[in-house]
Order: sequence, then structure tokens, then C-alpha cells
Amino acid sequence: MASIDVCYSPELLHLYDLEGKAVVAVDILRATSTMVTAFAHGATDIFPVMELEECRAYAGQGCLTAAERNGIKAEDFDLGNSPFSYMNGVVQGRSVAITTTNGTRAIRLSEAAEEVVIGSFLNLQSVADHLRDLQLDVIVVCAGWKGKFNLEDTLFAGALADCLQQDFTFENDATLASLHLYQAAKADMFAFLKQSSHVRRLENLNIHEDIKYCLQHNLYDVLPVWRHDRLVDLAGVKKL
Amino acid sequence: MASIDVCYSPELLHLYDLEGKAVVAVDILRATSTMVTAFAHGATDIFPVMELEECRAYAGQGCLTAAERNGIKAEDFDLGNSPFSYMNGVVQGRSVAITTTNGTRAIRLSEAAEEVVIGSFLNLQSVADHLRDLQLDVIVVCAGWKGKFNLEDTLFAGALADCLQQDFTFENDATLASLHLYQAAKADMFAFLKQSSHVRRLENLNIHEDIKYCLQHNLYDVLPVWRHDRLVDLAGVKKL
Repeated sequence: MASIDVCYSPELLHLYDLEGKAVVAVDILRATSTMVTAFAHGATDIFPVMELEECRAYAGQGCLTAAERNGIKAEDFDLGNSPFSYMNGVVQGRSVAITTTNGTRAIRLSEAAEEVVIGSFLNLQSVADHLRDLQLDVIVVCAGWKGKFNLEDTLFAGALADCLQQDFTFENDATLASLHLYQAAKADMFAFLKQSSHVRRLENLNIHEDIKYCLQHNLYDVLPVWRHDRLVDLAGVKKL
Repeated sequence: MASIDVCYSPELLHLYDLEGKAVVAVDILRATSTMVTAFAHGATDIFPVMELEECRAYAGQGCLTAAERNGIKAEDFDLGNSPFSYMNGVVQGRSVAITTTNGTRAIRLSEAAEEVVIGSFLNLQSVADHLRDLQLDVIVVCAGWKGKFNLEDTLFAGALADCLQQDFTFENDATLASLHLYQAAKADMFAFLKQSSHVRRLENLNIHEDIKYCLQHNLYDVLPVWRHDRLVDLAGVKKL
């Protein structure tokens, strides 16, 4: 039986052997939630890049460009990191290049894996189904906040372990802790996260509605995966 | 009001500014529990060192030498890492040099802090009282297991946060998660930890009794702190 492990920060990734594994990259607030939303609203492919300048250069290839630093949209980019800004036809039929403080870093540092899947609560079931099909050992790579542990990515890891506990083994401490925390939080994740200074800092940036949106389960049947140099959606869109 | 934060691994320590802070170094299974036990049984000072050869050299200065790697006592040392081997007068009046897989590394990497305190469940109350007196910002440095997150050190961080929640602020995600996990586990920490493959691996080394021992709260009024080049006990021994 394949196994699930959780890496709480990109800063710990060197301790994990990604070869032959499936990585689920997660940055709930908000990079991976936003990418899933972009695909659900018609984006054709997404280029996650680490640096602002690299991202800007994609404009020359006809891409929309998106950038966030410290929770705020960076200047001179088409889009920021709020999922709502990717709705209403804005990204329909378009390629998007995106760079964020934490999420795009987690994705790009995971490229050595056999498969890299983009995870969020919004597409939790699609991710779980895909992992069941693959039957590879799974490592959930939490983006964290500037290298440190964060709760919302951990809750996602716990939710995924909860979905997969019949079909995968997980006896390592990080996965067990994630599952316990998800079980404590799932009745009201928003209230659970409200204690967090990190989440309150994001709330102060007027993204209260973003947070509520990003905690919804299974809104989209979208499955972004890394292929060659970009993310593409392996699934269709079930509902908008 | 001073604050508490938790660093889940020595591999994340570079993200924390230790200057002017109090670090509580913790390796519940078993380095810091064992050091507290050694002081409770009469050790005069402890030299925590990172390398086996460095540890061996302390024998020339009249120290007992203790070494553990991968859960097992290293060859040609006086002592291993089981707290029981430090009882019955063995360390009475002696200096001990010790190196372990995770714990001594966490201690030595924390030297930049204003104060470094050795924490374990065995001396939880003494540590909490000392931190209340100091009124410095606190960082709990979990030794983890070979750089990865572990549950038992996290439960200690949660127990300490629980003790100090009237007198310190903690809104960061790692401390909140630790407190939630401690609250879920505290009714039966041994049962909680039994799910962990890391703890089961230790159990297979016949340290079942060590684990139960190390989870006992407030057995000793011992307060090991770093001074210059060694650990000394700031408190007396309340009970043996």
C-alpha cells in the first residue's frame, strides 16, 4: 500500500526523497486555491515562476501575468493572488504566468517528483481520486509562510489524509498531526483559523472573503498537474 | 507581554531570530528528558556536543561520556541515552559529556539566544516558572527526528504554551497547532503517540518503559540552563 507523508515547509524539502513520488503542492491562502479557480474559469495553462522579473517576461509570449508579494498584488502585473480576480471571463482561453510569496516556490522546488499535483480544498476530491489512481507514495508539500509552518496548509494535508485513509498508510508524525488538527478544525475551519496572527494579517488586507472562499470543499472538478514547463488541467470543469 | 513561538526543527532555526530570546530546547525521546534526569540524580554539569569524537575526548577531563545514534547507545561510551541508566548514583558528583542524534544538535544551534533552557515533561513546571520570571520572548526549539517534525516534542511545546497562556501571547500557527495537539493528547499521551511509526521504531529498541517515564509531568524541580560552555542546574532537586 502506498503511503502519505507531509512536508511542512519548502525549507524541509531536502529531507524528502521526491523521486518516484507524487507531490501535492498546497498554498491554501491563496496561490493553489487561485490556480484551481483560474483553471475552473477557463485558463488553458499556468506558468508558476519564482521571480517577479521572470514572471513579467511572460507578457511577451501573450500570457497574462500575476504577482503577489507579502499578500499584496505587485505593481505592473495584470492580476494578483485573489481567486475572485480570475472569474468573469478574465482568464478564459488564456495562459497565465504567476509568482507568489510562498506557493510558486513550493511548486517549483517539487519538480523532481514523478507527478506534481496542485491541491486546495476547492478540488480536494479530484486530487484524492487522482492519487488513488496513481498509487504512488504521496508527499504533501505545504508552502507555509516564508518558510514557517502554517495552519491552513496543514489542515488541507489533514483533509487529504482523511479522504485517503482507507487506501494509503500514514504513520509518520507530520501526517498524524495534520489529521488530528483537521479533525479538531473541520466543524468550523474559519473560526479555527481566526486565532492565527498569520491569518489575521491576511484578513487585514481585506481578503476576508477570499479566506472563506478558499475553505470551501470540492467546488471544482479541476486537476492541475505539472507537465514539462507548466501546469495544465487534467480534468474538465464540473460546475462554475 | 512576551510571546511564545515554536520552531519544529533545527533545520528551520535560520528563520528565527534568537537574539535576546529565551530558547527552550526539547528532545523528549530522550535527550532532554535524560539530561534532566541526570541533574536530578546528582550530575554537576553536562557538556552537550554534536560529534562522537568530540564527546569521546571529554573522557580525558574526567567526564563520563554518553552517546546515542539512531536510538542506540554508541560503542565505547560509558552511557547511552536511556534516563534509567543515569540513576542509582552513576552520575552523582560527575560531569557528563553527551552527544545524541537530535537533541544535542538542537541545543548547540540555539547558543545565540539570551538564555537556553532544557525542557522536558519531567521539569515542565520549573521551566514555565523560569520563563515567567525572565519575561523574554520564548522560542521552543524542537529537536525533531533527523530534521523532521515529531509529535512528542510538539506535545511538550503545547504543554508549555498551556502552562503559560495567562502570561504570554502566542498567535503564531506553530504554537496554536502545538496547543491543539496537546489538548487532544493529554488525557493519554502514550496512546496518542502509539500511532506514530517514529515512536514504534523507538519502542522496538526496547525503550517502552523509557517512553512512559519521559511523559511524566513535573517529576523533578530541575532547571538545566546553558552557561558559557556547558549546562548547569539552576534549581535544587525536590524529589528523587
